[in-house]
Amino acid sequence: MARDNSGKKPMFERLALIGIGLIGSSISHAARRAGVVGEIVCSALTPEECERAQALGLVTKAYANPAEAVKGADLVILCTPVGAFKEVAEAIGPHLENGAIVSDVGSVKAAAVRDIAPSIPEGVHFIAGHPIAGTEQSGPDAGFVTLFDGRWCVLTPAPDADPEKLAKLEDFWRSLGCKVELMSPEHHDMVLAITSHVPHLIAYNIVNTAAHLERVTDSEVIKFSAAGFRDFTRIAASDPVMWRDVFLNNKDAVLEMLGRFSEDLIELQRAIRFGDGEKLQRLFTDARAIRRGIIQAGQDTAQPDFGRSAATVRQGSD
Amino acid sequence: MARDNSGKKPMFERLALIGIGLIGSSISHAARRAGVVGEIVCSALTPEECERAQALGLVTKAYANPAEAVKGADLVILCTPVGAFKEVAEAIGPHLENGAIVSDVGSVKAAAVRDIAPSIPEGVHFIAGHPIAGTEQSGPDAGFVTLFDGRWCVLTPAPDADPEKLAKLEDFWRSLGCKVELMSPEHHDMVLAITSHVPHLIAYNIVNTAAHLERVTDSEVIKFSAAGFRDFTRIAASDPVMWRDVFLNNKDAVLEMLGRFSEDLIELQRAIRFGDGEKLQRLFTDARAIRRGIIQAGQDTAQPDFGRSAATVRQGSD
Repeated sequence: MARDNSGKKPMFERLALIGIGLIGSSISHAARRAGVVGEIVCSALTPEECERAQALGLVTKAYANPAEAVKGADLVILCTPVGAFKEVAEAIGPHLENGAIVSDVGSVKAAAVRDIAPSIPEGVHFIAGHPIAGTEQSGPDAGFVTLFDGRWCVLTPAPDADPEKLAKLEDFWRSLGCKVELMSPEHHDMVLAITSHVPHLIAYNIVNTAAHLERVTDSEVIKFSAAGFRDFTRIAASDPVMWRDVFLNNKDAVLEMLGRFSEDLIELQRAIRFGDGEKLQRLFTDARAIRRGIIQAGQDTAQPDFGRSAATVRQGSD
Repeated sequence: MARDNSGKKPMFERLALIGIGLIGSSISHAARRAGVVGEIVCSALTPEECERAQALGLVTKAYANPAEAVKGADLVILCTPVGAFKEVAEAIGPHLENGAIVSDVGSVKAAAVRDIAPSIPEGVHFIAGHPIAGTEQSGPDAGFVTLFDGRWCVLTPAPDADPEKLAKLEDFWRSLGCKVELMSPEHHDMVLAITSHVPHLIAYNIVNTAAHLERVTDSEVIKFSAAGFRDFTRIAASDPVMWRDVFLNNKDAVLEMLGRFSEDLIELQRAIRFGDGEKLQRLFTDARAIRRGIIQAGQDTAQPDFGRSAATVRQGSD
């Protein structure tokens, strides 16, 4: 995947990142690796974040006010929690450059369109997006250059989106390492409800269930977590505000998927209660096929235990 | 943790492993690294497994019949699925050496005691055990020498267990890299229900829920799994027979923990339905503390994304 971009005209003259957390900072790293932007600026909520973004070299200038950041930008990407989209869009709307592309990285898309589109003036091109990548960490220090490599970025253009601008945004994400897929905002929200939102919710949930038992101590939960539980704690360490906003803004799809999950769980619970070993074994066997598919598609490592054993050992022993 | 064992008399003359899957084969690797056993033999269910165990150098001899394997052994460890314990114990009981220690590695302990203890003759010392370690892989090829390093091994001795034999078994597990904790079989089963059994059950469950949706395809689930879902698929790829036996043999504790989990999930579901962002944010924030505890205790890596990003990228990109 070597890219020699020396001497090439950048794809965008000026990229404005509204918010500079894990995703915003990773976009900066990856866009600079690809050499596809002339200048990168950002806005951030706190003076500390602004300072940090500049100190890390993520941007040439960090603004407190998003309206300042978008001036002169031909690509604007909203990288704040979804709950801030409406306010941000209203603030930047009047200051967007004619011909600019506005996109976002929110984990819900119908609400993003609902909250952003009305503030986008004629002549500016809004195309919502979501790179399916991340870690449990947050903040400008959490970003890294390979975050998007091999991952999918979903774009959810309106039916009347400008084909040239859409193609340009697709190229941008590909240059960052992504594969690109187009779908409707509603379908995106349904797919992500099961591949992301419900998994996060049940991870948060089991961690809290474990923390509030009377007969098992927190210290026991921690000591014996290598038996499976610790896998859930990783995603349960994700940014609480970001995830609050996801659930508030993808209510219907999450409730539908959660209903299916609970229904299926009741079936397993009954099989346990009535000692139906045959059913348990069959359902457990079925689950292996999906894991194989994920590894074959390059969406997870084939190494046992996520390949983490060695790392844990080094810090975990005596 | 360097161990110089040259010239030392081994702790046990002859170790018999009944079953030579992930755990049995890892015990062989770790016991040979530590130099704590003279000879290792095993029994296995199929001729292929027997052949493989010998070819891998895990044992000097692999027997089809567990009764043959235990002859002359001063340490016998049952490493089969829990559902086979009763039959194995009945088969080996009459052939156990006077003074030998018999243990097991089953993920449930009350049922292990129930199924094994009655077949242990006087003069033989049965102490049930469970090393809290594993990966999603199975079979004699899956074992590796560092599996137990820094992990806890729980022993659940009867109140009248021989203190000298117990101390010896503790030392054995420490020599394999474990830290050792003693508790009652019933408490073990309660702790593991929440740290292991329920997490596996909900992982199996969400994978199957995802596989049976009408409006989201399997291919979409696989492509966009990096958003959280793929974390669950790892433990859902674990051995179906082993896990069937766990649930059939720890029914009460699993049903209790599952009841708590579902109750807590309903609370989250209601908060989503009624848009209670404050409650969501509070519950999500609480969950971070447990993750920090697990990392501080050396039971998981502090690296983002389990440190797996690089490995995935190499195989996942174009």
